[in-house]
Amino acid sequence: MVMASDCIFCKIVKGEIPSYKVYEDKNFLAFLDVNPRLEGHTLVVPKKHYRWVYDVPKFDEYWLVTLRITDAMKKSLKPKFINYFTWGAIKHAHIHILPRTDLDPDFVPESEDIVPRQILKLSDAEMRNIADKIRESVK
Amino acid sequence: MVMASDCIFCKIVKGEIPSYKVYEDKNFLAFLDVNPRLEGHTLVVPKKHYRWVYDVPKFDEYWLVTLRITDAMKKSLKPKFINYFTWGAIKHAHIHILPRTDLDPDFVPESEDIVPRQILKLSDAEMRNIADKIRESVK
Repeated sequence: MVMASDCIFCKIVKGEIPSYKVYEDKNFLAFLDVNPRLEGHTLVVPKKHYRWVYDVPKFDEYWLVTLRITDAMKKSLKPKFINYFTWGAIKHAHIHILPRTDLDPDFVPESEDIVPRQILKLSDAEMRNIADKIRESVK
Repeated sequence: MVMASDCIFCKIVKGEIPSYKVYEDKNFLAFLDVNPRLEGHTLVVPKKHYRWVYDVPKFDEYWLVTLRITDAMKKSLKPKFINYFTWGAIKHAHIHILPRTDLDPDFVPESEDIVPRQILKLSDAEMRNIADKIRESVK
């Protein structure tokens, strides 16, 4: 498997760094962002190392996995809506999934703000509880 | 076809409002955002009216169309990278595609900023030229 030795997401895939797992199959892994912008802020990554989301060969499968997690979030977290974004600060392809609720600090859908700036502080138990709820709802 | 009478994207689909078209097939349409955050800022919409991106039945096909436009942008605009986001200010599902270049006003991939705040002013001729370049590169 193609891995980058200094890549934090490759280390998470290999289990060298622990994560709050939300979903796993042969090609993809999803886990909670450890600096969540919202409760349930999830990252979906290919297990192989690719720089950008659009470099991932099974791009449609990648998004269908993201949809399955979206559906699980809808059921378990009951957000107002869900938004996606891709960026590239970590150099391993990842899709952000953000479940948005009325309780979001900056919940203004009409705003220019794409994501709230606030970083939540959640305990280990809270993170585990959120990951469990989503993971158990994946169909 | 399901349409919402007061929806600006439905009006664009029906041709009642003009747009700078980048891509069109039976189910999807892509056009330049008229308030571009960057040159080539494109929106991909389903022709039928759905509230959210994840409500679109052919979700994988929707992203494969987005990938084809991504590839066309890579070829025609030669961006540094491309990022996606979904939001919901306009209540008709749409995926934003943002081709990023070194010339971007806020090009700092490590930044907390997801998209630059600046709205570009581009002339009708410039918009047409950008749309043509992308559209002619779609395979």
